[in-house]
Formats: sequence, structure tokens, C-alpha cells
Amino acid sequence: MTSVELLGTRVEATPDAEFLIYGDQRLTYAEVWAKALQFAAAVRRLGPSSRVATYLANCPWAVQAMFGTHAAGGVHVAINRQHRGAILHDMLCRSEASILVTDSDALAEIVLDGCGVQTVVTVDSPESTSPRRPGPQQVPISEFVGTEICSPAPVTPLEPASVLFTSGTTGRSKAVLLPHTMLTRGARHVAEASQLTSDDSLHLWAPLYHIAGQLDLMLPMVVAGGVVVLVPRFSLSNFWKEVEDNHCTVFFGFPGMLQLLAKTMPTQPTSLRVGVVGGISPGLRYQFEEKLGVRFIDAYGMTEAEPIALSGLDSGAPPGSCGRPTSDWSISVFDNDGFPQPAGVPGEIVARPRRPGVMMLRYEHDEAATVTAFRGLWWHTGDRGYVDSDGYLFVTGRLNDTIRRRGENISPRELEGIICQHPGVTACVALGVEDAELPDQEVKIIVVPALRCQLTAESLHDWCRGRMSSFMLPRFIEIRDQLPLTGNGKLQLTELRANGSDTWDSEEGQRET
Amino acid sequence: MTSVELLGTRVEATPDAEFLIYGDQRLTYAEVWAKALQFAAAVRRLGPSSRVATYLANCPWAVQAMFGTHAAGGVHVAINRQHRGAILHDMLCRSEASILVTDSDALAEIVLDGCGVQTVVTVDSPESTSPRRPGPQQVPISEFVGTEICSPAPVTPLEPASVLFTSGTTGRSKAVLLPHTMLTRGARHVAEASQLTSDDSLHLWAPLYHIAGQLDLMLPMVVAGGVVVLVPRFSLSNFWKEVEDNHCTVFFGFPGMLQLLAKTMPTQPTSLRVGVVGGISPGLRYQFEEKLGVRFIDAYGMTEAEPIALSGLDSGAPPGSCGRPTSDWSISVFDNDGFPQPAGVPGEIVARPRRPGVMMLRYEHDEAATVTAFRGLWWHTGDRGYVDSDGYLFVTGRLNDTIRRRGENISPRELEGIICQHPGVTACVALGVEDAELPDQEVKIIVVPALRCQLTAESLHDWCRGRMSSFMLPRFIEIRDQLPLTGNGKLQLTELRANGSDTWDSEEGQRET
Repeated sequence: MTSVELLGTRVEATPDAEFLIYGDQRLTYAEVWAKALQFAAAVRRLGPSSRVATYLANCPWAVQAMFGTHAAGGVHVAINRQHRGAILHDMLCRSEASILVTDSDALAEIVLDGCGVQTVVTVDSPESTSPRRPGPQQVPISEFVGTEICSPAPVTPLEPASVLFTSGTTGRSKAVLLPHTMLTRGARHVAEASQLTSDDSLHLWAPLYHIAGQLDLMLPMVVAGGVVVLVPRFSLSNFWKEVEDNHCTVFFGFPGMLQLLAKTMPTQPTSLRVGVVGGISPGLRYQFEEKLGVRFIDAYGMTEAEPIALSGLDSGAPPGSCGRPTSDWSISVFDNDGFPQPAGVPGEIVARPRRPGVMMLRYEHDEAATVTAFRGLWWHTGDRGYVDSDGYLFVTGRLNDTIRRRGENISPRELEGIICQHPGVTACVALGVEDAELPDQEVKIIVVPALRCQLTAESLHDWCRGRMSSFMLPRFIEIRDQLPLTGNGKLQLTELRANGSDTWDSEEGQRET
Repeated sequence: MTSVELLGTRVEATPDAEFLIYGDQRLTYAEVWAKALQFAAAVRRLGPSSRVATYLANCPWAVQAMFGTHAAGGVHVAINRQHRGAILHDMLCRSEASILVTDSDALAEIVLDGCGVQTVVTVDSPESTSPRRPGPQQVPISEFVGTEICSPAPVTPLEPASVLFTSGTTGRSKAVLLPHTMLTRGARHVAEASQLTSDDSLHLWAPLYHIAGQLDLMLPMVVAGGVVVLVPRFSLSNFWKEVEDNHCTVFFGFPGMLQLLAKTMPTQPTSLRVGVVGGISPGLRYQFEEKLGVRFIDAYGMTEAEPIALSGLDSGAPPGSCGRPTSDWSISVFDNDGFPQPAGVPGEIVARPRRPGVMMLRYEHDEAATVTAFRGLWWHTGDRGYVDSDGYLFVTGRLNDTIRRRGENISPRELEGIICQHPGVTACVALGVEDAELPDQEVKIIVVPALRCQLTAESLHDWCRGRMSSFMLPRFIEIRDQLPLTGNGKLQLTELRANGSDTWDSEEGQRET
């Protein structure tokens, strides 16, 4: 079904149930439905089959504009609200949107020259004083959306619903064109795996401009008929209070965030019942389960195909595994030539859909990248992992993570595992950095020291010396308070790779200046 | 393995066995191998990783240049010797070849301006008097190829071997980039299915610039170590003599050609043992089996993926089927939305490789067409057919054959089946032609009358009237001596669709003038 049919079915069943909570605002399913159809009518007044971009933090209009665009028969393009400057401009151009929905604080960030945006709709509160900008027509949402509604356009589930941009950890973001079926079937799989009911209440800080926010979190609540508590961003200091105030039962976290939450978690169980994660360590999982009675579902997928595998609450998946493929997917693990690896042997995780519409249609304007990712008629995830003899998938990293140094291949995961055994280290990232003078790479580690621990690069380097082969010994070491992450919790590898004045270089024997 | 490894293995086993017969020329495997390595050395002298185009009718150099290009580590581009003018020029440009091998009769056809061809190698006999052309360097093969040989380049089987152009029955030809594995594994499948041995001798009129000539015919003989009798073109009057003179045991035919051969076949069995065909009718098959004791293998595939399914000599495939998928393929039949059809229900034939390298890597310079053909991570053949409950594939036509007239869908196969019941009709093609004034199509039939039968369009139209629904009744009728075919026996649909002075129009009630 389409996302509109999913919401419409829910509205028919429980129109007056609460759907969105955002600060003081509380909206029922029927109210969101009405707003979406009003938005659709406004979109349709401007022309047929429009594309609508949203550049918003989590708020009711981030949800309503998505459903409204779909109801108008259009394609929704959710742009990461954290992007700025050239990347933002590039995405706006590639979005092909004629309508942009944003907040007026964002207008200072946006350059519309050369984009196709004709109408900018602002969703600010009435007291906003941001000046109107010249250029394309700018309309407050209250003027854009009237009382008129339109009936949903006759869109079929295999047609495009959304464009989402990949997080671009390793290069230019790609524009991923997704069909409705992927959103709605994916949401059903997650809702089943987490055993969601209408009694559930989701703490949603994960941005709705990412696939996880849409498909793994918000839409499964529509399937179940529960409540979505919209939080504009993750706040470590507010998290437990937000959960308590709203009686949240479901939350989302990526490993780094869960590590932080584990340090501030209450001593008694809360309302939280289920955590939705991607790649949680067995140790961290145990802490939450033991102390709070929270159980986890682990979803494996990516913007292009989500979820490929799931470990549900009662799936019996072994620790560290993200479960088995859903009924919509077959998976395999390939060597470099495209031959399957035996059980337990790592390689590239590849997958084939077992039915239409459960993955992206293509990268827009990048057919060459699509062909590469589709080679041999397998979806090449770019992730490294293995499948055990019971068919459970284990993800161990990115395929191109491997550090090549002086003819040796180094697994960053292994190296990080060693460094993390140092009592003064809380977190560590190991990666390869290019050396302009050599054909291969140098090893770099970035470590976050434990609280109240005076860690120095020199002492850490000495500590490493007896604990790893000489080719693994890091040349570059950085000590940081925290690791730089993208909006959806992935490491900003480009930033981490760049050496700066804080990078200690063992070959200099001192800090670079 | 690569094509070079395939030939090299054969040369090691039976160096002195005959490989190629061409008129008075007889070449052993070792002699062809030597020529190929000499050609490779000549290619390598001009630079690394060259592309070599051949624009040749069947002759020993069409074989030797292919193996030689592969041995040099290059990509071989075989261009249809029947192309002329703009299409030929376009293919030469797209081939990216720096070397062109052709005959000097062809030079008048070739415009090299704007192509990357640096060297033209001519393979004429010594007595040829065609003048040398100005422009790129032109070298007789005897000067180009010296006595120096080079050892085969270290190419892996999954790397590109060849570019072949699709026949372009419905649009611009696409450049299909094929890996070695497809050629060599495909050849093994065909050799097994036909039970070829070193005693076999192949009558090869099918051009080596088509996938059938290479993969289904010449290369399987290399697998078996048999003889290839090269015939520059199909000749109905010479066929049986050529077979007799060379004791041929294997031949190739497409249905139209087999129909012609059936009329001139000897009354007694000949040396022929096996026919290799694509889509033979049960009736025609029976004639050859009954009278000559010839058995058939039916291969289903296309330039991009060959063979997908095979009915071998003892496969037990039911009449009209082209067998089951080979061990390298899974197949399915899809409805318009990509959902599988039940057994017996027709739809689009789709396939997925079960191992790497058994199909094209991509359409070169046409990633968009590649993505379309790879959608849902299935290879969309564009062919219509069904799979029976025993897994046997039946191909019924092209997917976009269906004639849409006045809101009704008409199956051309059904319509042709009716027309062929007319006692005065030998062959019939039905197709839809566009009507500029209407949103849909008009029905056109082209019929070949039975010998000594005075068939008129009017009488045929009258005959049709009581035998089909009114919307199927052909508006346009053409009576022709033969059907226009492409070099590999496909109907030239574009030519058939065009109405001319010989087209009878029922709405005019008379011939157009």
C-alpha cells in the first residue's frame, strides 16, 4: 500500500487516537490526516505531480508535509536540516522540488538561485520575526494551507514516494528514489518485530529526514496506532525526563548514544519497553536489559533498502547479530569476485529482494552508481559481515574500512578492540589515512579518554607497542572529547581522516604545528 | 576461464586437429592459436589494453582477431558486416576501437572521421585491387601480423571480453559489454546440451558478429575440439552441398530459414546430426527429425545473457519449449508490476544469474537502459512467455508485441495463428501500426502466400471476417514473397510496420497509391 493508504486505514480505525505530541501540541490521527489533505490541496493548486522538499527539524509539519505530498501524488524530498552552504544548495537543486517547506530561521541558510523552487512555505510560530527574503514567493504555512482538502491522488504502491540523500560518509551524497511499498512494508516488518500496539508511545528524536526516522520509527507507530512524541533533537540531559513526562515505551539509539545514556540511566525501570537500534554491542544491550528491562530490536538496512534483516523481540538471534533477512529479502556474503562465502566467513553483504518495491528504484541522476551497486543483479551493500550457519547476519563494518599499510591489511575493528582495552579509553576509532608519498595508508586512531583520565598520545603509543604487530601501531593519534557524528549517528570519516594541529605523529615524536 | 584459456586448453590437448575450414583453407587449432598470438603481439605493439573492432563476414580472421584481441588483453567489438552509413559510423564511434579489421571491399562503406580508429587492417586476398584510402593508416594483415607472438595477457574471466551490439529491432542498437565467463561457460553449456565431440563438424553460416555465432556455435566446437566450416553467408541453394562436402554434423537455423530448408531437404539422412535453433515450431522439428534423423537443441537467450535456458538432446523438454534454465540461472515470469505469475500464465520472462559473469556487465554509455533492464534486480528480457508446472520455459513473443486497438489488446501470435489456417498462407506476421489520428493502433498483417497460390488482400480480408472478432480484423494487408529479416533471423519490424504502395487498406477499399 501507499503511505497515504497506511495512514488512511489508521484514521478509519482510530480517528481520535493521539498521533503526534510536540511540546504543547497534541494532534489526533484525524487531525494530522486533515492537515495532510489540506496540504495536498495546496500543492495541487500549484500544479500536477509536484515535488516538495522539506528542510525541517522534527515537528508536526515534517510529518504532515510528507503525507500531504504523497496525497497530492508528489514525491517528498526530506533534506537534512543540518546541511548548510554548498551541500544544501546542491541537494535543493537535485531535489527538483518546486515547493520548499522550512522554518524561517533556515532561510538565512538557503540559497535558491538556480534551484527550481518556486514557493517557500514557512512553518514558524506566529511570533517569528525573521524578515521575508526577496526571491521566490514565501508563504507562511497558515496562508499556504487552507480549509480545502483534496482526495488522495491515485498513486500505486510501486511508484516513487520519496527521495532521501545518503549520508555521504565516503563521498557526495546520492539521491535515493524510494517507492511507497518500501516505506509501508518496512514499517510493518518493524512494527511486528517490536510487537508495537496502540498503547505504545515513541520518543522520536531521530530526524524524519533519515530513513530510520520515517520507516523504522514514525511509520511503524502508524501501523500500530500509537503515539509519536516529536523531539527536535537528541538531548542527553533531557532524554530521561522526556521519556518520563510522555510515558514513552519505545526509543531509538545508535551505539554511541546508548553508551552515553547508559551512564545516566535511572536505577529503576521506566516506561521504556523497546529500543530500536542498528548494531548494538552485547554488553550495552545487557546493561539496558538488566537494569531497565528494555529489550531491543536490531534492524539492518540502509537508505536504499530498509530493513533487509531484523532481530525482533523474540527472534532468538544470537548476541551481536542483527537477525535474519525479512521475508522480503534473500542475502548472501560475497568474496571480491562475487562468489558466495561459506557460513562464518566474512565478505561483502549482498541482497536480493524477493518481491517488487522493497528497495530504492535507483540513484537519481546517477545511473552509473546504480549499475555498480546492482552488478550481477545483487544489491551490493558495501557493508562487511558474515552469516552464521543458522542464517543470522553479523555486520562487522564497511567494506572499504580495511586499512592497507605496507602490504598488510589491518582490520580497524580489531585495532579498536585492542585500544579499547586501555583503561583510560572510552571510545576509539581507527582508520587509514592516505600518505602522499606512499602507495598505501598510515594508521590513525582517534580516542575519547575516560572521565578524569589524563591520557597522552605518547603514553598510549607506548602502551600499544607491546600489544600489536608493528604494522598495526598507529602513526597518528588524536585525543578528543567526543567523536564527530553525522545526524544519524554515523562517524564523519572525512573529518576524522584529516590531520590537524591536534594530531600527534609518532614519526615527528611531537605534536605537529 | 577466459576465451584464451579455453582455446589454449584445446590447443594443448589436440594441437593438430583441424579447427577452421574456409574454402580451400584448412587451419589446425595450433595454427589458429599461433595466428591469434601473432595478432596479439601486433595489437600490443600499438599500445596497452586496446580495443579492436572487426567488420568482417565469416572468415578465419574473424575468429583469429577475436582470440588475438583477447590474448592482447583487449576488448573485441564485432560489428555487423551488413551495416552501412550512419549506423555503421555510430557503432565505430561507440566501439572505442583504435584498430579496425575489415576487408578492403568494406572500405568504401566506412567513414572514420570522428572515430578513434588509428589503424585499419585489411584481410583481403592478395589479388584484391581495392585502392588504399587516405586517412588513418591502412595495413594489410600480412604486414600487421609478423612472426612475433606474445604470451596471453593476465586477464581474469570476469573482465570484459567483447562488445556486441543488440540487433536494434525496436530502436537504436545498444552496446553490450560481455565478460569472458559468459562466453566460455555458455559455450560449455551448449556443447554439453548438443553432446558435441571432436568428431563433429559445424556448418557455420551464422555470423560471428552475433552472440549465437560466437557463443552457441564456434566456441562450443572449441570445447569439443571439432571442426568449424566457415561459410560467409547463408545460401539456400548451396546449403545441402556445403553440408555434404564437409561432412557437417551440426548446423544452425532460425525458424524462417528452417522452413526454407525443409522444402529442399534430401530424402535420405545426411551427415547432419544436430540443429542448434532458437524457437523452433514442433511441426518443423518433426519434419527434420522424421526425414533426416536430425535432433535439435533450443537455446533461449539474447546478446545480453546467453544461454538462459536450454533444451538439450535428451532433456525431455516438451514440444515448443526451449527447456529449463541452465544451472547458471533462475527464471520467473512477471506480471506488469513485477509479481510472479503462476505456472502456465504468460508474462515477461525475467531471470537472475546464480553466479557471477554469466551475463553482460552493462550497456556501455547507456546506464539508464541498464538500470531499467535491471530493475528489481531481475534481468528483464523483454520477452513474453510462460513456465509450465514442470519448469519448462515457453517463449511466445516480445513483450511489447501486443497490439492495442480501440481499447482492446490483441495478441499478434493469436492473430497469426488464425491467418495461418488459411490454405493459401505459408507465413504471416501481425503487428500494430500507429495511426496518427488515433491514440491507439491499427492491425496490419504481412502474409507470404503458398507456392502457386493466387492470394489477394481482399479475399483474405473476407476470409478473416467470419473467423475473428471485428476489432482483430486487419485494416492493412501486405502480400510479400518473403519476410524481411535481420542478419540473425529476426523480423525487421520497422520495415514491416511502414506502409507503402503495396499496402492494401480496407478502409480505402483499394490499394494505396
